[in-house]
Amino acid sequence: MERQRHQGMAKNTYMRWRLPLVCLLWELAMIILFGVFVRFGAEADAHWEEEKREMNLTSDMENDFYFRYPSFQDVHVMIFVGFGFLMTFLKRYGFGAVGFNFLLAAFGIQWALLMQGWFHSFKNGKILIGVENLINADFCVGSVCIAFGAILGKTSPIQLLVMTLFQVTLFSVNEYILLNLLHVKDAGGSMTIHTFGAYFGLTVTRVLYRPNLEQSKDKQGSVYHSDLFAMIGTLYLWMYWPSFNSAISDHGDAQHRSAINTYCSLAACVLTTMAFSSMLQKKGKLDMVHIQNATLAGGVAVGTSAEMMLTPYGSLIVGSVSGVVSTVGYVYFTPFLESRLHIQDTCGIHNLHAMPGLIGGIVGAITAAAATEDVYGKEGFVKAFDFTGVYQTRTPSIQGGFQAAGIVVSLLMAFAGGAIVGGILKLPIWGDASAENCFEDGVYWEV
Amino acid sequence: MERQRHQGMAKNTYMRWRLPLVCLLWELAMIILFGVFVRFGAEADAHWEEEKREMNLTSDMENDFYFRYPSFQDVHVMIFVGFGFLMTFLKRYGFGAVGFNFLLAAFGIQWALLMQGWFHSFKNGKILIGVENLINADFCVGSVCIAFGAILGKTSPIQLLVMTLFQVTLFSVNEYILLNLLHVKDAGGSMTIHTFGAYFGLTVTRVLYRPNLEQSKDKQGSVYHSDLFAMIGTLYLWMYWPSFNSAISDHGDAQHRSAINTYCSLAACVLTTMAFSSMLQKKGKLDMVHIQNATLAGGVAVGTSAEMMLTPYGSLIVGSVSGVVSTVGYVYFTPFLESRLHIQDTCGIHNLHAMPGLIGGIVGAITAAAATEDVYGKEGFVKAFDFTGVYQTRTPSIQGGFQAAGIVVSLLMAFAGGAIVGGILKLPIWGDASAENCFEDGVYWEV
Amino acid sequence: MERQRHQGMAKNTYMRWRLPLVCLLWELAMIILFGVFVRFGAEADAHWEEEKREMNLTSDMENDFYFRYPSFQDVHVMIFVGFGFLMTFLKRYGFGAVGFNFLLAAFGIQWALLMQGWFHSFKNGKILIGVENLINADFCVGSVCIAFGAILGKTSPIQLLVMTLFQVTLFSVNEYILLNLLHVKDAGGSMTIHTFGAYFGLTVTRVLYRPNLEQSKDKQGSVYHSDLFAMIGTLYLWMYWPSFNSAISDHGDAQHRSAINTYCSLAACVLTTMAFSSMLQKKGKLDMVHIQNATLAGGVAVGTSAEMMLTPYGSLIVGSVSGVVSTVGYVYFTPFLESRLHIQDTCGIHNLHAMPGLIGGIVGAITAAAATEDVYGKEGFVKAFDFTGVYQTRTPSIQGGFQAAGIVVSLLMAFAGGAIVGGILKLPIWGDASAENCFEDGVYWEV
Repeated sequence: MERQRHQGMAKNTYMRWRLPLVCLLWELAMIILFGVFVRFGAEADAHWEEEKREMNLTSDMENDFYFRYPSFQDVHVMIFVGFGFLMTFLKRYGFGAVGFNFLLAAFGIQWALLMQGWFHSFKNGKILIGVENLINADFCVGSVCIAFGAILGKTSPIQLLVMTLFQVTLFSVNEYILLNLLHVKDAGGSMTIHTFGAYFGLTVTRVLYRPNLEQSKDKQGSVYHSDLFAMIGTLYLWMYWPSFNSAISDHGDAQHRSAINTYCSLAACVLTTMAFSSMLQKKGKLDMVHIQNATLAGGVAVGTSAEMMLTPYGSLIVGSVSGVVSTVGYVYFTPFLESRLHIQDTCGIHNLHAMPGLIGGIVGAITAAAATEDVYGKEGFVKAFDFTGVYQTRTPSIQGGFQAAGIVVSLLMAFAGGAIVGGILKLPIWGDASAENCFEDGVYWEV
Repeated sequence: MERQRHQGMAKNTYMRWRLPLVCLLWELAMIILFGVFVRFGAEADAHWEEEKREMNLTSDMENDFYFRYPSFQDVHVMIFVGFGFLMTFLKRYGFGAVGFNFLLAAFGIQWALLMQGWFHSFKNGKILIGVENLINADFCVGSVCIAFGAILGKTSPIQLLVMTLFQVTLFSVNEYILLNLLHVKDAGGSMTIHTFGAYFGLTVTRVLYRPNLEQSKDKQGSVYHSDLFAMIGTLYLWMYWPSFNSAISDHGDAQHRSAINTYCSLAACVLTTMAFSSMLQKKGKLDMVHIQNATLAGGVAVGTSAEMMLTPYGSLIVGSVSGVVSTVGYVYFTPFLESRLHIQDTCGIHNLHAMPGLIGGIVGAITAAAATEDVYGKEGFVKAFDFTGVYQTRTPSIQGGFQAAGIVVSLLMAFAGGAIVGGILKLPIWGDASAENCFEDGVYWEV
Repeated sequence: MERQRHQGMAKNTYMRWRLPLVCLLWELAMIILFGVFVRFGAEADAHWEEEKREMNLTSDMENDFYFRYPSFQDVHVMIFVGFGFLMTFLKRYGFGAVGFNFLLAAFGIQWALLMQGWFHSFKNGKILIGVENLINADFCVGSVCIAFGAILGKTSPIQLLVMTLFQVTLFSVNEYILLNLLHVKDAGGSMTIHTFGAYFGLTVTRVLYRPNLEQSKDKQGSVYHSDLFAMIGTLYLWMYWPSFNSAISDHGDAQHRSAINTYCSLAACVLTTMAFSSMLQKKGKLDMVHIQNATLAGGVAVGTSAEMMLTPYGSLIVGSVSGVVSTVGYVYFTPFLESRLHIQDTCGIHNLHAMPGLIGGIVGAITAAAATEDVYGKEGFVKAFDFTGVYQTRTPSIQGGFQAAGIVVSLLMAFAGGAIVGGILKLPIWGDASAENCFEDGVYWEV
């Protein structure tokens, strides 16, 4: 801050009136919109005693709450502790990592409940919510947390809130196109969350390119304890990823299968990450950056196919490959992206989310195209891909084609959306810091 | 320690015989009392195979264990990691924060199983326990953890154990009066846990007032990494609060609804906290103290009403207001309480638990008073407020009145109990440190 | 590293080709073996729609996933965050503690799925897996994490992988002997996990005895923040232990009871640990080593008996005793083991797992021998000990005898296996560091 003033090139990072205004007005808008639109779904409403009888349920246990709440809590931890702490690796940006992630996610889930609600839970003029909506809101915000990773340390909290507003909106549109119009399966969000979120964030950071960022190079590193804090984030993401990929799958075998596939993929990913981390380093030592990030690529890469009959060995293959791709990305692609394409990707989301997300979409398309009634059973086949109603005549190979189309749509939405939102964030009114003050908590926090 | 000796004003903080004696005798008492009184409830007893048939259950799934165990574990994390780490913000008192919280909670849950058991689970001379008792014991201890926040750094472990003994006892009496005599609803404990716990702790710290505490002022601050450790506590409390408020609600819609209301309230609370944290600071920067604490006020403030038909937008309003009140409290009330009322409140529990707890009680009373059969459904109305048996004739407005009475009773119990227990803790035999050695782990820990 | 070179006594710790080779070849082997053998069990397979009808289930809720997944996730956290962070107490070995634990566990669970699968889930040439297999794989790896504690800081990652390969194999054989041949009950693994894992690890570290280890004495201590990181591990192990001991118990009352017994035992253990930690210290101060470790002994010591009718007061007694034994162990036995028996036990697993594991096995044998139809009910008695088929005629006292035999078998397997594996690890090809470079992350990590 002082250095800013001395050099006379200071940007105005004073938040006192701007940040409160944005927070309060937006929260007021949420209250009004919730008041007009949001009500409890049948399973959370006190009328349920009567509903239950009509739905012919034998026990309160069949309330969706008990099928999904434990997974919801795991997902919740991933969004707030997982992403929050994963980003604390920077030596002087721990408050910003955890705190801004907290802020944008807390706003984002409210806005996502509305946006996704209008698209998917709208009945008679009301959005009816239950535990599945909470999970989907967390998912949607997950894509914002991913994009945050690319611009970590370089933006003001207001910019993050603005980005969240737009990204949640675009996410919901993209999700609607994929799930409802293309009738694509994507339970763990390889396409909707990771591919979209990562390429959106990479486009934003490209638009916000800062030529003089090396001025804060000394702050872009980690220190011993900041790397341990980051491992808290890594491990919670890694451990709970089976819950993430299975959280909104169909009850029963689909949830069960998603968890197993993800567990297998992640386990394999750790070994190939360690292997390549050591191999790509002249001294043969392991690099915490890889362990913190690339070990998670296996979760991303089975996001679409985990609920399908990918099989445990299929999952091991996907996890192994994604660990390699991600680690190689950290060593070779990230520097390339910065020097040649001017994409400054603080956390390396290109390696953790973008490439593994694409792998996930492709694996999903292939797995869907390869589905047979023999493997799934007659009923299981129809249920797994929801080949009912107008989709009764869809064949696996057509489904595979639509899955592939889903990847393309997500990419286009991400590039177009990221370019527009990046442009908006470039306006000089949001209070971002100058290059030399990036990655420094002191700008927005009392330290 | 050495400074103590030099100045000749040392207090005797030697724990070698006193602490072991208290711990061992009390544990022995627990063993004897458990031996006489505590047995497994029907659903945890090996006779359950026969019971199950009598209860006409279609599946083992209908064992209460599966309705409540995931929530129990979340609550358990809140008590031990949530409260424990939230208090690690002090730069030199991390061991005391986590370690003493661990000690008092581990003792407290045993004593609470007995006290609450005598009041609520006593049949034929035995206390029959199941997972709901474990949750309630954790809840009860939660109120002690809250009170601990007010005296953090200023008391010996023996004082904390003595306080726990008495506070658990008083908590159970107060809870019995509210739930059984007044027939009040308070699933998330705005009154029984937060209002009672906080005003009890504030009264105790008032009685234990230390005029020379500024001698250890340099230790009352945080350092960078201690603030990150504290954020672990904050986030686990924040994320799992929906489980806390829904853990003992009725099966089905009530648990479902409690989680949704709490989720909404907490999300809103983060935005207003950030807004006021920035606004009330000349430099407009965010203060970690507020982010660590005031963001949680939304969970406290819907504690009573979460299981009612508060509605999502109602929750947003409650959360928004409580974030503002709590942040304003940290900036203006805490200094005032210390300088004028001689209430030294280390963690600011007045802002996080006392005021939001009162808000929670009031919101609960209003929500109950406003209940209609239209909103709840005929059956849901009776079930939600348990208007059965002698309470068949209770109207919502009468229920609202009793809810309000519950707040008053909790306050009176807290003030009276806190004064007495504070007096007991003032006896010079418990081994507390002198003012200059407060907030310093070296007094009771090998460092 | 540089010091090594200077002194001319350097060991070759260069990992560049060795570690990648081991990781990649082994992962390849996993893929092939999974491809040949591992398939989804009925409840995770898409054919389940048809299966469900045959099994006469009324709801998807009766899928084993919903009975066990929340417990699985808790166990998963214990293995990766619990053990990982518990071992971060060393001031300069945090990366190794968390990172190598991550590596060996990720490999171990894959190999365990196969080994345990061949013994327990093999049907028509295929291993059919579901959530219970995931839990058992985590359990098996838990025993490796325990053994890792003994050799923490003194081995290369390749040694750890080699140890994991062999230990998982031996674990599975031992487990098969106990559970299938001796028909022993050991739901929480006092014998199979703790006794076996700890004595295995102690034997390995004895074989790997390093006479000059005092050269790295300055690194064997903790610093303030490393002790707080370790408390994260402690608390997650402590809080989730009820899930650990109940995770694979029979549905219904057995799971319910296991959780209650473990909760009680752990609570009591904290008090006696604190008491003895203070008492055995001249200055009467508490020692973080004890708090971090001995407080967990209560969970180990009810591992076998938790699902039996141990009763809550029985659990308090077991927990109290094990806290005392464990703390006394840290003060007196650990130095003795090192100086007299040349057993260098970095984390003190002898006190946390070996002795409490033995207690657990003995308590289990006694509890089984004392079982009566009166206490368990006619049906509950048969169900609790699975006295069906060829075991119909087993009496409780015979069962007690077999339980005791299980302890002996576990010990013999541990000593024999540990000696052989220790011998293998002594080969000079695995890249371990010289004594002066032990407990130092810089050897294998970019710092």
